[in-house]
Amino acid sequence: MAFINDNYLKLKAGYLFPEIGRRVKEFTQSHPDKKVIRMGIGDVTRPLTPAVVKAFHEGVADMADVNTFKGYGPEQGYDFLLKAIAENDYQNKGINIAPDEIFVSDGSKCDTGNIQEIFGHQNKIAICDPVYPVYIDTTVMSGKTGVCQENGYFDGVVYMPCVEENGFIPELPKTKVDLIYLCFPNNPTGTVISRENLKKWVDYALENKSIILYDAAYEAFITEKDIPHSIYEIEGARKVAIEFRSFSKTAGFTGTRCAFTVIPKELVAYSSEGNTIQIHSLWMRRHTTKFNGVSYPVQKAAAAVYSEEGRREVKEVINFYMENAKIISENLSQLGFKVYGGVNAPYVWVKTKNDMKSWDFFDKLLNEANVVGTPGSGFGPSGEGYFRFSAFAERQNVLEAMERIKKLSF
Amino acid sequence: MAFINDNYLKLKAGYLFPEIGRRVKEFTQSHPDKKVIRMGIGDVTRPLTPAVVKAFHEGVADMADVNTFKGYGPEQGYDFLLKAIAENDYQNKGINIAPDEIFVSDGSKCDTGNIQEIFGHQNKIAICDPVYPVYIDTTVMSGKTGVCQENGYFDGVVYMPCVEENGFIPELPKTKVDLIYLCFPNNPTGTVISRENLKKWVDYALENKSIILYDAAYEAFITEKDIPHSIYEIEGARKVAIEFRSFSKTAGFTGTRCAFTVIPKELVAYSSEGNTIQIHSLWMRRHTTKFNGVSYPVQKAAAAVYSEEGRREVKEVINFYMENAKIISENLSQLGFKVYGGVNAPYVWVKTKNDMKSWDFFDKLLNEANVVGTPGSGFGPSGEGYFRFSAFAERQNVLEAMERIKKLSF
Repeated sequence: MAFINDNYLKLKAGYLFPEIGRRVKEFTQSHPDKKVIRMGIGDVTRPLTPAVVKAFHEGVADMADVNTFKGYGPEQGYDFLLKAIAENDYQNKGINIAPDEIFVSDGSKCDTGNIQEIFGHQNKIAICDPVYPVYIDTTVMSGKTGVCQENGYFDGVVYMPCVEENGFIPELPKTKVDLIYLCFPNNPTGTVISRENLKKWVDYALENKSIILYDAAYEAFITEKDIPHSIYEIEGARKVAIEFRSFSKTAGFTGTRCAFTVIPKELVAYSSEGNTIQIHSLWMRRHTTKFNGVSYPVQKAAAAVYSEEGRREVKEVINFYMENAKIISENLSQLGFKVYGGVNAPYVWVKTKNDMKSWDFFDKLLNEANVVGTPGSGFGPSGEGYFRFSAFAERQNVLEAMERIKKLSF
Repeated sequence: MAFINDNYLKLKAGYLFPEIGRRVKEFTQSHPDKKVIRMGIGDVTRPLTPAVVKAFHEGVADMADVNTFKGYGPEQGYDFLLKAIAENDYQNKGINIAPDEIFVSDGSKCDTGNIQEIFGHQNKIAICDPVYPVYIDTTVMSGKTGVCQENGYFDGVVYMPCVEENGFIPELPKTKVDLIYLCFPNNPTGTVISRENLKKWVDYALENKSIILYDAAYEAFITEKDIPHSIYEIEGARKVAIEFRSFSKTAGFTGTRCAFTVIPKELVAYSSEGNTIQIHSLWMRRHTTKFNGVSYPVQKAAAAVYSEEGRREVKEVINFYMENAKIISENLSQLGFKVYGGVNAPYVWVKTKNDMKSWDFFDKLLNEANVVGTPGSGFGPSGEGYFRFSAFAERQNVLEAMERIKKLSF
């Protein structure tokens, strides 16, 4: 008799984005004449840039010729891509990361979830609230939590509320935690962490032998100086942090699929007998056994992001989205909303008025302005009363959405 | 203090293919003048076919234009590909599989490993010996076994020896098992299962509420009539089987990455409280939470495999490899080796002479003929004394390898 993994039964029914999809579908079916503007799911809209497209085509052409055809590649990624990442994202910025400390994958969603597999059930996990739902869902699936309580928190997880009062920056846990998910620039709040604050986290992890799972998927959107782009800018981080990065938002790869995870060789965890185990070798075993590398033409395309043209083109696209963020922030501020994020991240985090619930705000925007955003409460209980606007949209849609919202009364 | 998943420590040190790579590298470094012929890893050598390449380029072009650009797609795959698979691989052959019972992924290695995650630790797993190493390794990683014994078997796993005496077809387990990995046409032995024999397994699973994890990655290589291509050709299989298929070997996608898994909606397993749970919805949850879909241009390329030109071209490539298999089989038979497989599968399974060990045979072939194959013992204890030749090679290399081997004395 085959048994399921009972942990799946603990999960709450609706993953956030499918629920948004369901409501939008229902609306469009009953209002086929309305043009819905989508600023919800955080999906890019600008096409791949010319340098990336050129390299992508070249990669496909290589697969068409027996002399350049590629079969199985290294599971961790081709050297040409690993070197491009190490040099451009780290070494040229004075950060000590070697190519063989990088694992190329098909997405940060996959990596931030899959990383759970190499860690034991006894780990105490710390997670921000609100948070990208994948961290908590995969923690539950992997058996590291109890059941979900009425307040929306899972037993056994240490939640770190990120609210107006603390500037949406989590405070150090009062109880000891073993694995800590951090995401900066933050999804969903759009806030960033200062070097000083991030150092506190690294120091905490060093002291407690914890590991920080650092999601830096939005680092390319940082516009202000002195904000850390990588956790490895902080002294000691090589001993305590795994960093996740992605081409999804940076270079428009949400439908093309390429990301990477950095695991420094100094990073260790412990067996239940107390022996020191290198995380790099453990992840190498997982990655080579359960994954078969990213499509070769996709890796060629990703490497082109680091070419001179690629860097310039990608920067332009990022600037385009950040101009959207500015338009959203300014318009909503003018309407009297308290607005956060949007300066170093493509997300604008808006506080509703009169304690309006997030999903009520969602329904109001959908029904009255035909604009789709993301209810803050979908990211966790502390997101209640907030709403996330994504800056990933075409300009005319952003402008039109703002005009429509201006006509509503809140 | 961060703890690792202790199950990883149970794994044996060397995954088979890295060990082969290590020995080959050592040889080529000390003999830079020798031309090594690789027939070991089972990796395709023929380029993508013209129809596939054309569609792949078109997919890339779509990503370059804001009007056709694709961001996040459905995690389970685009409708155009799901429909092409359902119609061509199943419905047109009289097999009842709907598009929404198919999950497109980036590889069968990933799927056959990841599927473990939705099943509980208490399941008893049955695995053939010899076997594709990923099944056993991912079973160990997921915590469903004890430690490895001296004979190479993991405690808690029910091994099913596939040896000359039973025609390399596993016998029904004498103890009850819950999850059963089967692979036909078989890797590594190249053997196939008859309809009658496969029915026995389906009946066993129906009776015992077990689930069969059926790896049909090599179905396209079947040349004889009346051999089942899909487990769903057997009555009742929709209630007990998950089928894994891949474009890797069928269409040369080992470096392009696309595969799919079929989960009929009738398929259920049980919670530890005894409730019936639909596996389709469980895998949907896993797939949408921990995976973000296959690259859009890759899905376009995969769909082209089902076009009229695509089917004809792919068939030609398969015939090419199967001619290789015939050459290998005939030559080794003439040298007095007992040879299995190679008729309905791209693998030829050769028995060594005089009880020579698999790795000794490997070293002899590498050192004396500069030919790389795969030691049977790397697939499990019952593979000892056997050797796998892959038919995935260029013709002149196959011919030259055979000439070189003919000169050796065994």
